[in-house]
Amino acid sequence: MSTSRAAARLSRVAGHIHITSPIQNQTRRMSAVTNGRPQRRHKVAIIGSGNWGSAIAKILAENTTANSDLFEPEVRMWVFEEDYQLPSDHAAYDPSRHSHPTKLSALINELHENVKYLPGIPLPPNIVADPSILSAVKDASLLIFNVPHQFVSKICDQIDGKILPYARAISCIKGVDVSPAGISLFSDVIGRKLSIYCGALSGANIANEVAQEKFCETTIAYDPPGTLTPVPEEFPVVNHALWKALFHRPYFHVSMIHDVAGTSLGGALKNVIAIGAGFMDGMGWGDNAKAAIMRIGILEMRKFGLMFFDTCRSETFTEQSCGVADLITSCAGGRNHRCAKLSVEQGRPIEEIEREVLNGQKLQGTLTAKEVYEFLSARGKAEEFPLMTAVHRILIGEEKVEDIPKLLHSGGGLLPSPK
Amino acid sequence: MSTSRAAARLSRVAGHIHITSPIQNQTRRMSAVTNGRPQRRHKVAIIGSGNWGSAIAKILAENTTANSDLFEPEVRMWVFEEDYQLPSDHAAYDPSRHSHPTKLSALINELHENVKYLPGIPLPPNIVADPSILSAVKDASLLIFNVPHQFVSKICDQIDGKILPYARAISCIKGVDVSPAGISLFSDVIGRKLSIYCGALSGANIANEVAQEKFCETTIAYDPPGTLTPVPEEFPVVNHALWKALFHRPYFHVSMIHDVAGTSLGGALKNVIAIGAGFMDGMGWGDNAKAAIMRIGILEMRKFGLMFFDTCRSETFTEQSCGVADLITSCAGGRNHRCAKLSVEQGRPIEEIEREVLNGQKLQGTLTAKEVYEFLSARGKAEEFPLMTAVHRILIGEEKVEDIPKLLHSGGGLLPSPK
Repeated sequence: MSTSRAAARLSRVAGHIHITSPIQNQTRRMSAVTNGRPQRRHKVAIIGSGNWGSAIAKILAENTTANSDLFEPEVRMWVFEEDYQLPSDHAAYDPSRHSHPTKLSALINELHENVKYLPGIPLPPNIVADPSILSAVKDASLLIFNVPHQFVSKICDQIDGKILPYARAISCIKGVDVSPAGISLFSDVIGRKLSIYCGALSGANIANEVAQEKFCETTIAYDPPGTLTPVPEEFPVVNHALWKALFHRPYFHVSMIHDVAGTSLGGALKNVIAIGAGFMDGMGWGDNAKAAIMRIGILEMRKFGLMFFDTCRSETFTEQSCGVADLITSCAGGRNHRCAKLSVEQGRPIEEIEREVLNGQKLQGTLTAKEVYEFLSARGKAEEFPLMTAVHRILIGEEKVEDIPKLLHSGGGLLPSPK
Repeated sequence: MSTSRAAARLSRVAGHIHITSPIQNQTRRMSAVTNGRPQRRHKVAIIGSGNWGSAIAKILAENTTANSDLFEPEVRMWVFEEDYQLPSDHAAYDPSRHSHPTKLSALINELHENVKYLPGIPLPPNIVADPSILSAVKDASLLIFNVPHQFVSKICDQIDGKILPYARAISCIKGVDVSPAGISLFSDVIGRKLSIYCGALSGANIANEVAQEKFCETTIAYDPPGTLTPVPEEFPVVNHALWKALFHRPYFHVSMIHDVAGTSLGGALKNVIAIGAGFMDGMGWGDNAKAAIMRIGILEMRKFGLMFFDTCRSETFTEQSCGVADLITSCAGGRNHRCAKLSVEQGRPIEEIEREVLNGQKLQGTLTAKEVYEFLSARGKAEEFPLMTAVHRILIGEEKVEDIPKLLHSGGGLLPSPK
């Protein structure tokens, strides 16, 4: 970005901070300012340093530098410590230091590269890898969560009471937890466990492509209640403009919305639809059959959101990156789509394909299809979601792929009135 | 379809005819009925017998048979007459009759196959090919237009005054006519020239796949004004349920809406977006960049519709087959996408690729991009459609593909409030 454009953007962002909008009322108050600027800057920490965590850390660090009136430049990144042997063909390999396994956090800080999880991508030097989670989150007013979902709960237990009471958070963890008992959003788990507010980021994003600065978009949902511990007045107000200043890059376009549940749901439900799309390709029914499944999938995802979450908005699914765009990507080449396609083509159970193709990893879509079906069945609603129900029933052998058009046709009410 | 399901569907359709809904008020009146049924049935004619025309004729003929309480079984299909030499390896080839070129209409009626334009697909015997357009449309109360768009005007001139004054029509002609002076819908041209009402059918449909009964969906828009010559009372009411009975098949799912302009616009504007999506693939930016372009494309298509047509509805673009699904298909493998991709990969003008790949046929998207740009520019609105404008300006060499993310970012108001 040219200096003048960056300056123009900064002034826009700074301008926003003093604009009242209805959605900012909850946290807004007059900033104590000196010469038109808040006296303190936000300190950013990211919890997680895998593939996606490192790509997001890179973005955060680029933006804390670019917006140094709003953020302290240093971004602390918590690293789950492990020993790592730097390959001898790495450009920075020095036999005097790297001939034996080294701490990953130390390597990241030395080489400014996450050599294990995001190799080949230079990280800004203002990312500081920290193997201590308590040290990483200390004094951070903005917390970004980007860890595998099974660790969320334990990590929150570790840092509960050790973070700033007025910290605000964004979860980059994909999907939701679905069980017959209910649906739980990772952002809600984080917020509840830490007694803070946590929004959500989700979109048509693949870590490596984002890290390579290939163009994509994402959605960030942030809609804090009015009952939080206030952010002290000397900080810039934490609102949509501030989060956009922290996440938006020329190659990573951010759209800010309020619907946290809808933003999170798409990342889970799209995997079920991608299996349905893979079935169409497996049948050789062509791009139009697949587009039909995707269209119906968007509408069923929306119906699910509107039925079970008061705060869900129709347009999160039909217009946002976390909805329609993420679904498009998943149906174009994701693993759920691929395994479903191969399963139909070869006439073999998807579990066999999964074992062969995924090398020990598990398909998200088959599990989510089962969980969603059980959740819906427990509420007598399975028939109102004919596509997601058909996908599950085909996966367990109770229906056939060739009957999908009939199953969709017989289903009830695919088109609810949007709110 | 099983007999019992067919019967159930018929009774649903018949039931609908006597239900008042707000949208039917304009044309609704009490039918003169005998034993609960209208005394006369609709006669269906299709004007056009190309690839898509023949596939639609097959659907019509299947449904007039299945719904013989509503429609006369015979479907007249106007054939632009030509001589055709049946290949000697055709299964029905008989040297005593086929050793020389034969009239195409006679061949269709003899073989129940459009051997030239839809070879290999058996057509129902109740399709009657008719080389006389006046004879084909005579006494038809339902007219289906499915001809290349450049012939619409001339054909209307030929049959003007020779059709039933109370006929109703549906245009299956894809797209719209865009010029700096304005946008004209083919359905409007037909309606105006013939002094009847004409709706529109558009969706993610490829003629050959529909003919092979591969599953897909379509959208039919029908919203007649209250000022038409009334359909006589002894006919079944021409409403959404009737059109659905005529077009919906187990493999061809129909969604009925009211937004004729939106239904038609998608089929034209999607070609511009498909070029943008092809640019992304050409850059090797991955599925997420492409999904971002498609998402923005849906929103720009919608914005275009809402800005220039009072009757357009947001959901036609975000939810219907004629909108989001047709766009998905076009960006997956259509010719606009393919040529744009090759153009970027090979660093050569798209016109060169077009000549090589399309064998003399013209790309729709480059022409539409130019027409849309000129239309928008004439109204000072080009900047409000940054993606469509960028596509055109890249095509004419005024911008670069790699600047698309920047061009999108700088554009004004991508997200209008839907109506």
